[in-house]
Amino acid sequence: MTMQIMMADAAHGRIADRLVEFGPELDVLTLGADGTVRRGPDVLPEAFVDPEVFWISADLFRSGQLQDFLGRILRGRRARWAQVFLAGLDNPVFGSIMARGVRLTKSSAQAPAIAEFVLCHALSLLHPIAEQRLAQDERKWRYLGFREIAATRWLLVGFGAIGLEIAHRARPFGVHLTAIRRRAGPSAEADVVRPTEALLASLPDADVVILACALNSRTRGIAGADFFRAMKPGSLLINIARGALVDDDALRAGLDRGQPRHAVLDAFSEEPLPTDSWLWAHPAVRVTAHCSNAGDGVQDRGDALFLENLRRYLARAPLLNEADIADTGA
Amino acid sequence: MTMQIMMADAAHGRIADRLVEFGPELDVLTLGADGTVRRGPDVLPEAFVDPEVFWISADLFRSGQLQDFLGRILRGRRARWAQVFLAGLDNPVFGSIMARGVRLTKSSAQAPAIAEFVLCHALSLLHPIAEQRLAQDERKWRYLGFREIAATRWLLVGFGAIGLEIAHRARPFGVHLTAIRRRAGPSAEADVVRPTEALLASLPDADVVILACALNSRTRGIAGADFFRAMKPGSLLINIARGALVDDDALRAGLDRGQPRHAVLDAFSEEPLPTDSWLWAHPAVRVTAHCSNAGDGVQDRGDALFLENLRRYLARAPLLNEADIADTGA
Repeated sequence: MTMQIMMADAAHGRIADRLVEFGPELDVLTLGADGTVRRGPDVLPEAFVDPEVFWISADLFRSGQLQDFLGRILRGRRARWAQVFLAGLDNPVFGSIMARGVRLTKSSAQAPAIAEFVLCHALSLLHPIAEQRLAQDERKWRYLGFREIAATRWLLVGFGAIGLEIAHRARPFGVHLTAIRRRAGPSAEADVVRPTEALLASLPDADVVILACALNSRTRGIAGADFFRAMKPGSLLINIARGALVDDDALRAGLDRGQPRHAVLDAFSEEPLPTDSWLWAHPAVRVTAHCSNAGDGVQDRGDALFLENLRRYLARAPLLNEADIADTGA
Repeated sequence: MTMQIMMADAAHGRIADRLVEFGPELDVLTLGADGTVRRGPDVLPEAFVDPEVFWISADLFRSGQLQDFLGRILRGRRARWAQVFLAGLDNPVFGSIMARGVRLTKSSAQAPAIAEFVLCHALSLLHPIAEQRLAQDERKWRYLGFREIAATRWLLVGFGAIGLEIAHRARPFGVHLTAIRRRAGPSAEADVVRPTEALLASLPDADVVILACALNSRTRGIAGADFFRAMKPGSLLINIARGALVDDDALRAGLDRGQPRHAVLDAFSEEPLPTDSWLWAHPAVRVTAHCSNAGDGVQDRGDALFLENLRRYLARAPLLNEADIADTGA
């Protein structure tokens, strides 16, 4: 018995040869940029389209077909599982899809790229690179000491795929790493793991605080006035998750006190960030255009993850990165 | 039988309690900032001063007493071993000391700090942090892609303590790391280890090239015209070793061709770097004042290394970081 599976034509172009290995039972349908659904070269009438599996790749976002594709899943009678290219599923549509009994798996393909982004920004701010530049501009031979990264303490708020990739790169520097996650309990990848309730108590020690958690009803505005009052003076905040985790007014008041000293923000409550936002010009803020995930390895890792999960789905094995309802903004 | 051991008064102040554990056979002499040698509180006449062991700590450099201290080792009749605070022993005086049969051990205490410096600079140049800054200054929401660090190839010229610390921090990013060292042969810390003769053949593939070798007759000017012609266009050169490894005219010609695209230089043929050097103002060059070693953990690690080597010396065990003649500029 065959199983219908649907994906963007562009995604199919990259993985067609690997799909062949799954055998003739896989009935692969492709959505073209023109909106037609095809089986091989032939257009398939919509009456015959009712996939069980969907690969929601970033191609659909780029071609403007994401909403159409998600609508197909919401309406699909046989829909059972969709692999999503996103790491965060806080858009309410994903809650609706899960409410229909469709399993969703998130992507971890961005995680290595985002971890690189975090390390590059953190390291460029922890060492006195800006002061070195000033000395050079003044042609001054100035021996500038630095606090070693090895002596810093990092706090990861959220410890999913992204947090793990950050930890993997940061800990060889000798940093002390505390992870906050819903389900506490030890991890070989962190020095300490604490539950969400311990967040405020963990902030005063942290030199680097990284927001890497899902946005949902319990995390919305988690970085508010209390959060910033608890931050260590001179610390660094990096948000590569969702803008709505942060209360921007509280952030501004915190920056004025040096709690934190610097903020690197890749996500905002409104995107694109409005041209008149104060964030653009604040001397202690680095603004990036939600591009911490813009690594050139993301697409290949995403395709590979979908194929691995497809193999698992067919074998009725546990799927990688399966979402639960707390991932969906609920 | 007691053994005379000599160090700066400042170093003694830090480690006196740990020296006690070695027992009363250790006859500790201290050199004060006033030039007097003391045993405890008492000034010891020079006729009774003839140490077997010396701890050449950075305190002596800072107090301007380094030459005096080295002179004592050169003249000492009983001198057998000196621990040096430096990672590189290319100053000719160390060759003279070794020629007298005195064993020298280098320091690896700077290595973690220097590795941090290398990673901070490399990462801040590999990702598009400068382009992100430009977009922010223009209030442009610009999705800037990046080549992942995971896809880059690094070439370490020299694979001693510093090279190992660099590898330890770089490899978790997934980089491909080739190490060049005098004695080839596999290492668990590198993807490939090649002998010095393979340097030119290794350059065309390398995105990041780090000079981390000793300066001696075979390495002087190793980064000359041939070296830069073999570099990968768009690559990055980092020199945290010695300025005389690099032919500055050849570097300038290389930079004009983008071979390398950027250079981070912490060591120069003449230090301090003369105010009129072209290096200060070249847009593709970062100049730092030989301060890659300026981490706040260096002093404690140096003291700990001396104490560990003292323990080994007394036990007639192999010393850590023992220099050979190729380390001494010969």
